[in-house]
Amino acid sequence: MQNLQFTPIGVVRSRYTDTAAIPKGPGAKHDAEGTIELRPELEEGLADIEGFSHLFVIWVFDRAGGSELTAYPPSDDRPHGVFATRSPQRPNPIGLTVVELLGRTGPTLRVRGIDMLDGTPVLDIKPYLSGVPPETLRRGWLDDAERRMAR
Amino acid sequence: MQNLQFTPIGVVRSRYTDTAAIPKGPGAKHDAEGTIELRPELEEGLADIEGFSHLFVIWVFDRAGGSELTAYPPSDDRPHGVFATRSPQRPNPIGLTVVELLGRTGPTLRVRGIDMLDGTPVLDIKPYLSGVPPETLRRGWLDDAERRMAR
Repeated sequence: MQNLQFTPIGVVRSRYTDTAAIPKGPGAKHDAEGTIELRPELEEGLADIEGFSHLFVIWVFDRAGGSELTAYPPSDDRPHGVFATRSPQRPNPIGLTVVELLGRTGPTLRVRGIDMLDGTPVLDIKPYLSGVPPETLRRGWLDDAERRMAR
Repeated sequence: MQNLQFTPIGVVRSRYTDTAAIPKGPGAKHDAEGTIELRPELEEGLADIEGFSHLFVIWVFDRAGGSELTAYPPSDDRPHGVFATRSPQRPNPIGLTVVELLGRTGPTLRVRGIDMLDGTPVLDIKPYLSGVPPETLRRGWLDDAERRMAR
């Protein structure tokens, strides 16, 4: 298959400089505030974004080494296929985070819910429009792991 | 900023060969079934994915031409910044779709909720774990546009 090339639209500014400091695993709360600084020439693309309470941020695990098809998530003591996890060591090291939009100053978004390292490249931002109703969700090995790990 | 290069993990098989056939705009229902065919050597990465009811699919608008910072979505008669829309003509032509997982056969996932063209390259698949509660969501210009366009 062909290779696809992207240029970051901006960068995350976060309190986290070390992955060890980022809350992970069952019950992890992501309420850290930070900013997403777009390249100034892209500011026009943010028009009307303030109306949305939540955004999808698509970003790059730029400091994740290598790719493994089997992942060992911190939330479980059993391995799982990488696509059934959020492991950074994935074939394409792309991250996805839902953040709450707190405000905007020019090309900079202030957000809550940061779980990226400071300096993380951002590929895209999209409005979060609707979610899957909780009662229709099945969370696979995670529900099972939460029960087992809580013992 | 540095360029980042990705190789698709697979491809979407869909009934849609023309973007005009894909439901768009307010109230669009995405219940089309299709498949996501991973590269066979990545099958191991799908272990345990059957336990999840919904998946995020990160993919590439490979037939979208160019990028515009201002978008004219079909759901409104007013323009908006591209990052406040799901326009394909974005700085990085990356798409994001939540699909329902119906089943798996080897490296192939059968899913519902396809809104991609047949042959669309897929970059990543992640489990959908939780949504933002509807009562905390604000949908910006979309709520306003739905009211205006319904008149």
